[in-house]
Formats: sequence, C-alpha cells, structure tokens
Amino acid sequence: MSSPLRPEPADLNDPQLRARAVAAARGDLPFDVLISGGKLLDAVTGLIREADIGLTGPLIASVHAPGSRADALEMIDATGAIITPGLIDTHMHVESSMVTPAEYARAVLPRGVTTILWDPHEFGNVHGLDGVRWAIEASSGLPLRMILLAPSCVPSAPGLERAGADFDASVITEMLRSPAVGGVAEVMNMRGVIEGDPRMTAIVNAGLASGKLVCGHARGLEGADLNAFMASGITSDHELTSGADLLQKLAAGMTIELRGSHDHLLREFVEALDGIGHLPPTVTLCTDDVFPDELLDGGGLDDVIRRLVRYGMKPEWALRAATFNPAQRLKRSDLGLIAAGRRADIVLFDDLTDFRARLVIANGRTIAQDGAMTVPLKPLDTAPLMNSVKLPALCEDDFKVRSEGNRVRVATIDRPRFTQWGEAETSVEHGFVVPPQGSTMISVAHRHGLAAPRPRTGFLTGWGEWHGAFCTTVSHDSHNLTVFGGNTADMAAAANAVIAAGGGMAVARDGVILALLPLPLSGLVTEASLAETAKGFRDIRQAMEKIVTWQPPYLVFKACFGATLACNIGPHQTDMGIADVLTGKVLETPVLEIVS
Amino acid sequence: MSSPLRPEPADLNDPQLRARAVAAARGDLPFDVLISGGKLLDAVTGLIREADIGLTGPLIASVHAPGSRADALEMIDATGAIITPGLIDTHMHVESSMVTPAEYARAVLPRGVTTILWDPHEFGNVHGLDGVRWAIEASSGLPLRMILLAPSCVPSAPGLERAGADFDASVITEMLRSPAVGGVAEVMNMRGVIEGDPRMTAIVNAGLASGKLVCGHARGLEGADLNAFMASGITSDHELTSGADLLQKLAAGMTIELRGSHDHLLREFVEALDGIGHLPPTVTLCTDDVFPDELLDGGGLDDVIRRLVRYGMKPEWALRAATFNPAQRLKRSDLGLIAAGRRADIVLFDDLTDFRARLVIANGRTIAQDGAMTVPLKPLDTAPLMNSVKLPALCEDDFKVRSEGNRVRVATIDRPRFTQWGEAETSVEHGFVVPPQGSTMISVAHRHGLAAPRPRTGFLTGWGEWHGAFCTTVSHDSHNLTVFGGNTADMAAAANAVIAAGGGMAVARDGVILALLPLPLSGLVTEASLAETAKGFRDIRQAMEKIVTWQPPYLVFKACFGATLACNIGPHQTDMGIADVLTGKVLETPVLEIVS
Repeated sequence: MSSPLRPEPADLNDPQLRARAVAAARGDLPFDVLISGGKLLDAVTGLIREADIGLTGPLIASVHAPGSRADALEMIDATGAIITPGLIDTHMHVESSMVTPAEYARAVLPRGVTTILWDPHEFGNVHGLDGVRWAIEASSGLPLRMILLAPSCVPSAPGLERAGADFDASVITEMLRSPAVGGVAEVMNMRGVIEGDPRMTAIVNAGLASGKLVCGHARGLEGADLNAFMASGITSDHELTSGADLLQKLAAGMTIELRGSHDHLLREFVEALDGIGHLPPTVTLCTDDVFPDELLDGGGLDDVIRRLVRYGMKPEWALRAATFNPAQRLKRSDLGLIAAGRRADIVLFDDLTDFRARLVIANGRTIAQDGAMTVPLKPLDTAPLMNSVKLPALCEDDFKVRSEGNRVRVATIDRPRFTQWGEAETSVEHGFVVPPQGSTMISVAHRHGLAAPRPRTGFLTGWGEWHGAFCTTVSHDSHNLTVFGGNTADMAAAANAVIAAGGGMAVARDGVILALLPLPLSGLVTEASLAETAKGFRDIRQAMEKIVTWQPPYLVFKACFGATLACNIGPHQTDMGIADVLTGKVLETPVLEIVS
Repeated sequence: MSSPLRPEPADLNDPQLRARAVAAARGDLPFDVLISGGKLLDAVTGLIREADIGLTGPLIASVHAPGSRADALEMIDATGAIITPGLIDTHMHVESSMVTPAEYARAVLPRGVTTILWDPHEFGNVHGLDGVRWAIEASSGLPLRMILLAPSCVPSAPGLERAGADFDASVITEMLRSPAVGGVAEVMNMRGVIEGDPRMTAIVNAGLASGKLVCGHARGLEGADLNAFMASGITSDHELTSGADLLQKLAAGMTIELRGSHDHLLREFVEALDGIGHLPPTVTLCTDDVFPDELLDGGGLDDVIRRLVRYGMKPEWALRAATFNPAQRLKRSDLGLIAAGRRADIVLFDDLTDFRARLVIANGRTIAQDGAMTVPLKPLDTAPLMNSVKLPALCEDDFKVRSEGNRVRVATIDRPRFTQWGEAETSVEHGFVVPPQGSTMISVAHRHGLAAPRPRTGFLTGWGEWHGAFCTTVSHDSHNLTVFGGNTADMAAAANAVIAAGGGMAVARDGVILALLPLPLSGLVTEASLAETAKGFRDIRQAMEKIVTWQPPYLVFKACFGATLACNIGPHQTDMGIADVLTGKVLETPVLEIVS
C-alpha cells in the first residue's frame, strides 16, 4: 500500500521483482513476455525505431535490438505494429457514458486507454462521500488504472440548489487521504476562487496541503482573473474556447487538458500548436464527457488522438500528449514511457492514422486484443447506487406555476447555454400561470430526499416548439429530476416513467412514452452493456426529434443536461427556483407581479 | 515541515500567503514586488513576450501585460532584460569547488543558479553520516536551494579501499528520511547493479522504497547492460561519452543530466539534439565537478548554458533544459516556470548570449544584483570538518616499497585514466625496490583513522617524467592522502606539508614546497574565499608544470584526482594496495616475484 502522499504506487518496488527484471535484462533469466517485430514510437524523442520489448511481471525489463533475444515464457508477434505507451486521459467523468466503471473499462481498454483521471463528480453529487467511496472501490479491481479526483464543487452552487451532498474542505481532506485519490478535481467555482470565497478557498487549500494535484476549470478566464485563479494554486484547464485561448493559457503556465468533446475547436488547437513549432510539455489530452453512443462508435481518448491527427497534428505529438506529458503531470515516472524499469502499459497500434489497437498490455499482462477484452472484468455490486430517485409519482398540477389574479408578469430564462433574464406577461387560468407564448416549461424536483420533492417550474425561451416532454435525472450538477415540456400532461408522464425506472431519461408525447432509457444506478448509469445503453440513448435522441424542433438540433439536446447548472453565469432553474449566481438570489416562483 | 515523502516543500501552501497572492493578482492588494519592463522567455513555449511580474512573498502572484499595474511595495526595473526562471543544476558536488557551501552559493547565486542537486559524496566519504548531516545543515540556511542526494557508493569499491565511512542500505534509508534529501545520488557501481550485488541492489531498492529519485552514472553502458541497469530502477545519467551515446540514452528513456565539465563533447551534444528537431523533455543540465578557478572565471550552470548556446543550441532550449525540465524531473511543480502560483525564483539576464545575470530573485527576495550578493550568507560552523587528516608526519622510507632479493618483477599501473596492468623488472637496493625506468610512484595513505596509516606505493607508467612530487587529500573517492612523485624525498616533503595544513595539496621539488593549497576542512575544502582558493589552485597547477612534463598537460593533472578511483575498470592504487575491481583482488605490494 503506498502512502497517500506519494503519487507512485509501491508495487514496482518489490526487490524480488526488480531482481528478476535485472536478471532478465542481462540475459540470465527468460522474459515473462517478449514483444518482437514491432516498431517503437519513442514518446520522448518522437522517433520510430525497430525494437523488441521484454517484460518481467508488471515491469518493462528490456528494450533491445530486434531479434537479439528469443527467450521468453510468452511471445507476442508485433510485426507491422506501432508500439506506444498506454494512453492516459487526464480529465473525465465515467458517469457521462452512463455505464458502470467496469463497462467503461471494457470500452476503452481495448482501444489502448490504460489510465484515466476520473472525477466522480456525478456520483458524489448524488450519493455524497459514499458515492466517491463506491467509485474508488469499483476502480480498484479493474485493469484500467483509475486515478480518482476529489469532486471540488458539490454542490456546484451552494445555496442556489440542493444536491445529494455537500463537500466542504473537511470532506475533501478526507477523500485526499485515500491513496486512490490523486488530487482535487476541476475547480469550477472560478469566481469563488478569484474572490476568495472561504468555502472554495478552503477546498483549494486542502488540495495544496495534500501535495496532490489541484485541477482547474478556467473557462473564459484571462488577465487578472486568470492570474488570481492560478495564484490560488490551481494548475490546469480543459475549458479552452479557441486557439488563442489555448496559447494564452499555455503562456500563462497552465497544464492543458486538451479536450476532445468540442470537436469544432480541435483544428484551431492544432494550428495554434503548429505555430509554436513544438509540442509544449504541458499539453495533455482528455475526453471530459462522452455520451454512450459516442463512446461506442468513436471511442475514448483514442478518438481524441485520431481526430487531432486527422486535423493535422503530428502523430508523435498527439501520442506524447497522451502518454509522456500526462505522466509528468501526474508525477508518475512509472507511466508514459516504454523503457526498462518502467511499468508495462503498452499498446500495439495498427498504424498512426486509424489508431486501431491490436493488442493492449496493462501492468505487463495482455488484457485486450483485436478490440475485445481477453481478461474478465470484476464489476462491483451496484446495490448501493440503487433507489436514488427519492420521489413519489407526480401529477400534472405539480408542474404548474400557481398564482393569484388574472394576468401576471413572469421572469423568463432566455437563450439556451448562455442564459439571460427575460420577462413576459401572461394570463392566469384556474389558479395556474399559462406559459408565455413560445416558452418551454422547465421543472426541477429535488430527488435526494433532503428537501420537499415538489417541482419548481420556470419558463425557457429560445428552446423551440415542444409537442411533448423530456425528463432526465442526468442534469448537471445536482442531478435533480428535470423535465422540459410544452404541456404538463406529457411532463408528468415522462417524469413518472423515469421515477418508475429508478432514474434515467424518457420522452413523452400525447401521453405516450416514445422512448425510455432506464438509468437505475444513481439515476445516472446502468448495468446494461454499452451497446444497449448507446442504443437506448440513441432512441432518446431520435424520439426528441419527434417532439421538438430546434436549431441546431444536436447542440440544444446536449444543452438539456446543463440547463440547471446554476454555477454558470445567468439565470438557471434549480430545485429551489430560478437561481442567479451573480446576485446569489433564488426566485422561488417566476411570478414577478400580479398585473391584474 | 514537509513530509520526507513529498518533493514539494509546504511553505507555499500557507492559506494566508495564498489569499494575499490571489488578492494581489485580482488588484485588491499591491504586490510586494513588481518587476516591470522586461521580456519574459517562457520556459514552456520558448516564446519571448513583454510581461510584468508581480510577487507576493515567495509566490509569483501575477504575470500580466506590461504597464497594466503599478501598485507595489518595491519596484524592479527590468527594462532590456530577459527574464527566466532560476537555473537548476541537476547533478553536482560542491566539494569539487573546494569552498564551503556558503561560498559556493555566493559564487553561483549572482549568476542565476537558484537550485542545485548536491551529492555530498566527498564529505560522506570522509566524515560518514556526520558529513552528510553537516551538508544538510549547511544548506538549510542559504538562499541557494540545495536538494541533497544520499551518496550511494561510499566507499566506491568496498573491500578494495577504505574510506572514512561505509554507507550500506540502512544508512541510505536513514538519509532518505530527511526532507532535505531528494533521492539516491549517482549510482556508480554499475557492475554491482547489473550483476545484482546484494549491497548495491539493497541501496537502489532503498531509493525506490523512498519514492524519491534514484540517479545514475551509466558510463559506457549499452545493450543488455544498460537495460539491466535501468531495470533496477535507476533513471538518469550524466556520463555521456558522445553524441551517439546521448541519443542512445535518450531513446532508452533515461533522464539526461547533460554535463558541462567535458567541454569537448558539447558540440556533439548540440548537433545530436538538433537532429531530433526538438528538445526532449528529459534533457536537463548539470555541472558535476567544477574546480575553483573554473568556477571563479567561468561560473556554474550559467557557464554550461553559455557554452551550449555558443556551440549552437537555441537559447530557449538551453534554458528549458536548465529550468522547466529539471523541475519536472524533481517533481517540483513550484519550480522552473514563471507563472502565477509558482515560486518566485527569477533571473534577469542582460541577453541570451553572455547570460550575465543582472538581478536574481530567490523565494521572492532579491538576493543578488550585478554579480554580487545583496543579502548576507550564513555560513555554518566548520569545526566538525576539521582535523580530518589523521596521519603522523611521514618519512622518506614510508614511501618506498620493501623487498628481499636483488632483482624483482613488479606490477605496474599503465596509462592514466583508462588503466591497465603492466609488468617490469627492476633492482632492489638497501631492501627497497628501485622504481622501474620511466615510472612514477603513487603512494596512498589511509587518513581516516580506521586502519594503519602507512602508505602503500605502486608504480605508474605513462605519467611523464617527474622532478618532484604532488600530494593531495582530494583523491576520489576515498580521499586518502595520495602522493605522486619521482623521488621519495619530495614525496615526503609534499605529504608532510599537506598533513601539517590539515589537508589540501602541495607541490614539492628539491625539498622545497613550490605551492601549497591548504584545505583544512575535510581535507577537501577551505573557508577561504573563492578568489583566494582559485588563486591557490592555480598556483598548484602552475607549480605542477615545473615538476612534470606530460601531454596534454591539463588532462593528466586532472587525472591525479581520479587515479585512486578503484571502482573504475583496471588496476588502481588504494590505501590497501593495487586494486582490481574486475577480479575483486588487491595486491598489497607491487612485487610479484623475486627474480634473484
């Protein structure tokens, strides 16, 4: 067991293992595994050379001239393959793929990803410390190396929303004591840090005191704000908005977790780095959030590499950013390099364009071949994640906004994603506000059992015309039950389908459930296979097209999952009302004034 | 106090300090120091930009657009200067400069060197653990950051020589417990590692168990030997012999401590790196051993940079290899980068050719300006280092080789540096062997009080013609009293002068002492100033030219200090006799056979 204060695990320090590796390297013992005939892409120099690789247990014992050794218990023919270290994803959330950690591992290991930095932020928001503990336990038995990060912003907007937990600095400190936890996850409450908010500052300081990573989320920060954010001790960012932003953050000295989830930015990033003329050592790669259908079809970090190379990045740069650079960031000298004495995390790729992983070795053991696992994965009992949707069945009236009078002035939440306050006048019928013309209802019901479960409803504008409803318990970051709709009957139908499923997503129209994706674990993920989950999610996407017209369709659908993210600037509906992080106020009801 | 298991000291984690820095960065507090008008050479991107830098205590609080802030308690005008992080020397021995740590700091800090990795191997060989403890204490009060390394090879050739101490794995483990010790210093006993020698293996394993660096010395290693050496867990090398060797070690995955002490190799190194087309992240720079006159005239790590750039290396590469790359190697994210939130170790250079440091800031404090310290240095009491030459006065006969008979066959040590066994026949007069024609005597007397102090004498060939003698207590690695000479009268005179001085060097001819450099501290260093020490050493060099002719002169003089290095291949005279590391045997006397 390594000390919680040390980034390197102690398993490679076993004297007998080292003695065996030294003996194998000098030729007095056969290797356990010998990989021969391949071409090694050296992560450090970027050069490709023919080399055979001998392994002893989890160690690389030797990297030597091709054909110079043939004594090994197991031979791996790497003819034609490009050999690289295992890929390292420096920022991601397993929960975004809606499958269990074991199923996520099954998806990415055969693609060459051997290490991920997982911020179990969503499990944390739903289950609190128990959710993070479950994530640690789930990761411990898997051949995918999961370095967990302590979720720093649970809830993301304290006082404006109610998640299932509240992580203050003392809870963060407790998590950081675990050797499985590598640092503090993306600090999203940027204003809190910059303005010296005591809660957020204490969390960052807990990270510094641990000696582990303190990761950032520095969206749009520049100038004095960026300096103040970094002066606190936060050292990374993945929220880049342009090539110029990338260059600015690099020059500022931030470690970059270059993110694949915003594909339209990748060409800019490639051009910006080309302009520097070399790959800075502080550039790493990450996936952040990958939906299940994207994971199934495209992949994980391998897909980020593939696209970067397609957009013009030199393959050796993309691979260094996915291997050696992140290992340095992690202060893990055992990872990210194929060299004698290092950990045997090795991928055999077919080529440097498609990056199809032919064979994957983790800790010296072949764990995947030709796209499939070759070893069993041990899933963890998921019972602790069940029954997380603590809500009774809801009825139509629960979604309506009550009011006195005949006509009222109401607040509206205008524009998806970059929201702003608006107002409208509308009538009141039978004691309920009639949604303003062209608006979409959004209702959020606290589902964690810490407050009354009655939904709070607001009015969105700019979200298109809805002929039905969509309900989801994946709703960042508090993951309360969130329902969008054009009418309350469909909203109740969709909500009740999700509640009955123990969480997930549903699309309803005319009282009929068009699609249902059950996510009974935490209301976020399922034990179903990735293929099944991807199909279910695709069904939801397609059903959505039948109930709403919007432009561009994909972007707005994705926006549904972030509509309640109250830590972002602008008004956001939460389980408490319409929250505004800049004023720190919450409107319990959108009714501003009874006009008549 | 930081944990011994963590590379980062905890002083930057003070919440009040961070709060002040954040407030200063956002503009709510003035900076403590504002450096304005300079150009920042960004270690990461290699790009130069105009930037002002605000400091709060030991922290960099802000790096911002020029002129955008003017509120600071102290202003530093950097107009025309190039600003870089403080230089980091990744492998060196203070003792080689023959001055105290405080005097060494006084020499290099004004040149921009703010961090050194010091292997106090020589103090360790003379004083054992007490010597290393003294080095730690001496370093602790100085503004030069000294990260100590635990000397791994004391003695360098156990059983073949007797130093003043014996560091087995348990002693190494004790040293590694200190937070001042950053790892295990250069493992020189390469064969011991490769062949799995229990003592050496246990020392390397102690380093691995500590989670700290395990540094190497991989001279001439390649193929299976190099792999076995690295498989043990050793990760660095500074003993490069050519550009091809550099490329091979880089490709093998070693961290390179590119050494300035072998100037004739630097052009090759520059060319080899140019061939790769970028600076690998594993290239760092070091000085290793710098004689006092070289330190005074040329400098420390600044001189390595200056020469590399003169030989064609891009200045931004040289600086990255001296700042960011070594910080990564050290797992010190506080060092090597000028960025908000990092430690304020900053140098203002006049230009990128001469690299004259105009002003040097360490831990946020201006500590040197225009080549001189601006703060006092606190030297440590040197009394514990005194009286280390535990020898009585010697007489001529002590240096002679006794023998029966009239003619004998004797072993000779042929060729400086890369020694080999030889033989000669010679006569015996009055019970003493007459040195073979053309040979030079070498006598080594144990001076640490652990064995009889009678010198052991051997015969060197290929060392030129000696008309006098040279005595030194700087004699790697055991630092026994070592005397070279053409006649025993001068040998005794030189030896007695050194013994009377409590250690040092002396040159004698015709019974007269031509030059004496007293090194009364450990027999290795002096409390005198660097200027005085350099002059004394230069006097020794010049006096040597009057007593011996050799080609090339400089190289052979330097070879005197390594003539007893019994861990190297080939015969070497030690205090025990003529030692051969390959056979593990010691000849007490060079007399092989009495011929008549």
